[in-house]
Amino acid sequence: MSALLTDLYELTMAAGFVAAGKHRDTATFELFARRLPPNRNFLLAAGLAQALDYLATLRFTSEEIGYLRELPQFARAPEEFFSLLATLRFTGDVFAVPEGTPVFPGEPLLTVRAPLVEAQIVETYLLASISFQTMIASKAARLAAAAEGRSVIEFGTRRAHSPAAGTLAARAAYIGGCLGTSNTQAGFQFGIPVYGTAAHSWVQSFPREEDAFGALQSLLGESTVHLIDTYNTHEGARRAARLGAPLWGVRIDSGDLLALSREVRAILDAAGLPAAKIMVSGDLTEERVRALAAANAPIDALGVGTDLATSGDAPNLGAVYKLVEIKSSGENRPTFKRSAEKATLPGAKQVFRYEDRDVIGCSWECIGCGDNSSVQALLSPVMIQGEIAGRLPSAAEARARATASIAALPAAIRSLDPPPEPGYPVTISPALRELEEGTRV
Amino acid sequence: MSALLTDLYELTMAAGFVAAGKHRDTATFELFARRLPPNRNFLLAAGLAQALDYLATLRFTSEEIGYLRELPQFARAPEEFFSLLATLRFTGDVFAVPEGTPVFPGEPLLTVRAPLVEAQIVETYLLASISFQTMIASKAARLAAAAEGRSVIEFGTRRAHSPAAGTLAARAAYIGGCLGTSNTQAGFQFGIPVYGTAAHSWVQSFPREEDAFGALQSLLGESTVHLIDTYNTHEGARRAARLGAPLWGVRIDSGDLLALSREVRAILDAAGLPAAKIMVSGDLTEERVRALAAANAPIDALGVGTDLATSGDAPNLGAVYKLVEIKSSGENRPTFKRSAEKATLPGAKQVFRYEDRDVIGCSWECIGCGDNSSVQALLSPVMIQGEIAGRLPSAAEARARATASIAALPAAIRSLDPPPEPGYPVTISPALRELEEGTRV
Repeated sequence: MSALLTDLYELTMAAGFVAAGKHRDTATFELFARRLPPNRNFLLAAGLAQALDYLATLRFTSEEIGYLRELPQFARAPEEFFSLLATLRFTGDVFAVPEGTPVFPGEPLLTVRAPLVEAQIVETYLLASISFQTMIASKAARLAAAAEGRSVIEFGTRRAHSPAAGTLAARAAYIGGCLGTSNTQAGFQFGIPVYGTAAHSWVQSFPREEDAFGALQSLLGESTVHLIDTYNTHEGARRAARLGAPLWGVRIDSGDLLALSREVRAILDAAGLPAAKIMVSGDLTEERVRALAAANAPIDALGVGTDLATSGDAPNLGAVYKLVEIKSSGENRPTFKRSAEKATLPGAKQVFRYEDRDVIGCSWECIGCGDNSSVQALLSPVMIQGEIAGRLPSAAEARARATASIAALPAAIRSLDPPPEPGYPVTISPALRELEEGTRV
Repeated sequence: MSALLTDLYELTMAAGFVAAGKHRDTATFELFARRLPPNRNFLLAAGLAQALDYLATLRFTSEEIGYLRELPQFARAPEEFFSLLATLRFTGDVFAVPEGTPVFPGEPLLTVRAPLVEAQIVETYLLASISFQTMIASKAARLAAAAEGRSVIEFGTRRAHSPAAGTLAARAAYIGGCLGTSNTQAGFQFGIPVYGTAAHSWVQSFPREEDAFGALQSLLGESTVHLIDTYNTHEGARRAARLGAPLWGVRIDSGDLLALSREVRAILDAAGLPAAKIMVSGDLTEERVRALAAANAPIDALGVGTDLATSGDAPNLGAVYKLVEIKSSGENRPTFKRSAEKATLPGAKQVFRYEDRDVIGCSWECIGCGDNSSVQALLSPVMIQGEIAGRLPSAAEARARATASIAALPAAIRSLDPPPEPGYPVTISPALRELEEGTRV
């Protein structure tokens, strides 16, 4: 990935830091969400693996540096800036919440401690990586809950914000609780289960629907899912039933899915195919999934596209990356911002998770340490001096963590409905409060 | 880009087409939007360049084919399928509406005519490429109109759906009418003007705000934009004003932007800096931009992030890619779909644009030809037998086309408010209607 994939001001600031001789100051930035998006009781952290890949491979090509030299914004930049870019690597430390962990506003998902110039340049990419996957994983967790035990499969690449976003959405959706994805690249790259059989064009490419079904079944056997709504769903169901086993089942992609699923279930049962399953798809939303589950629809699996791959009801997270500490020769200064509605707390932080509440403290605190409690410190080192620390969990491991840690949340937070105010309790430790009051003076 | 970046069912169907001996049938697919998203009077076509790049470079690696071989869905696939993938190239013809052209529901943005197996496999990628950039370009056109002559700069990469989506959003936003972007990669890759100076972290990294401003100005000269809201916007404006020229101006990123822009304007004017400009940013939406313009806010430029890069009020387009014609030995068969609310019209089409209405006809029709009228046929060949036909317009050329063709739309369609029902008139030619009625029988 190109190192130029960043906002230009990160690079003008980098040039300025070099000009001011501050580029080797050690800066600490934290990435967090200021608030929960609408309809979300928690966020599910995801995207760390891609963020670390980026940091581990960050470098500028000479062609890219040549491009910057020609921009008016760099006309007065010191030559040292360009030579710094030519050898720039990310050499800092990164602390992060593991993928698949529920997080709340104000809690850092990621802390970067690095020479100022490095920590600054990576802001844009880190934000886009982590907030996108976190947003999708959070949405997937809701869809999985809404389906009440039915399988949810991610079908949204074609509606994602670019093909690359589709692949990352598939990964995040899997972490959040989907059974798998239709995106083959995500299967190949991340080891995620992939699903898919045939589209309407398959049926249309044969003169008769029954020929299309027969050809599919001889190819796919027990993986066969007949798409039965190209012409008439009931007729399609009867044609599929006449072919009998082996098949997985049928898919309905349009119409009144509740009524049709019941009628198709009856057709399959009457044909002696009680094990044949029913999948539904077609512009499904969380709300529609919930309604189908509430009506006890005889549906085994749901393919969800747009609403999942774009987080339709809350298509952005609004995460930020804020400087919280800067250390130059002899001076260690917590920083903060006081602007309207965008205030930040100073200093590097840690998140301490109790069974039913979180405490945000200073990074050096050790709340609950040694008293044999179940308090977890959520942030741990994942990159040390530019090297990834240990093996990163796979997408499957992150998914297992998500399942377990969502189950451990209080019922009101796990619920699809809004929790009683003020939601999950997140407080500030006395030491952090004291630091904040000190810097405000 | 990996050829696996597609839905698995495209590949299972491909295997099925090989098994059925149909993979060399010539298929025609059309890519179009079924309806306009909310708050849109038209769509602005974009994303074609990336779609054609993909088609021109499509190929499977042996590692990717090895992955497919291990999937249960391909356990019975004929060996010929795998050998076909090993040498697969896109060899078809593509017809498209040029980037920067307004389009309406039902009108193909892209027509693919290729051997069935090729045309099928590319569906997912083409949809994700074209519908994402079309969605963003359409949103950018609205923001540019809302700003009433003020410059709009795309600031949204950090909030985009992945870093790669941010770069493509920058391109599409520029085509749609933005002045440029903060995304440096988009500047490098697509020749788009880039903008950016400094963030709050720049100010915070200096002990005093005035030091931060001074250092920035000596680096950037007349490109300097002081970010004045880190601590107190009025004080920030006064500190910036004390430094005087050369500078571009100041940026306000929080608070009541209307009131602050007026107060800051007064501060700059009083300091003898009437030429210093004001930029605003900070969670700007189309609605807020409109309100600022309506209030005649003394604002010169607006940086718009999330709402633009995610098309916040309509974050998906719902475009589809439908088989409209299939030609096997001796048989040329228009295809269609009759399912509830998802019916499609059969046969390859052309879009004929009059001054104030469109007619969708059959691809072989030549409506308005030869009568010296101003009727334009919107779709033209852009790829012939897998080779890109001629030079593709640059992003800047697409932007110029967009500006001119939006200006040529009827005022009610250009407007930010909904047009009188039924919107822009799009009718079906008699020949297409006849074809539809023929296939319905």
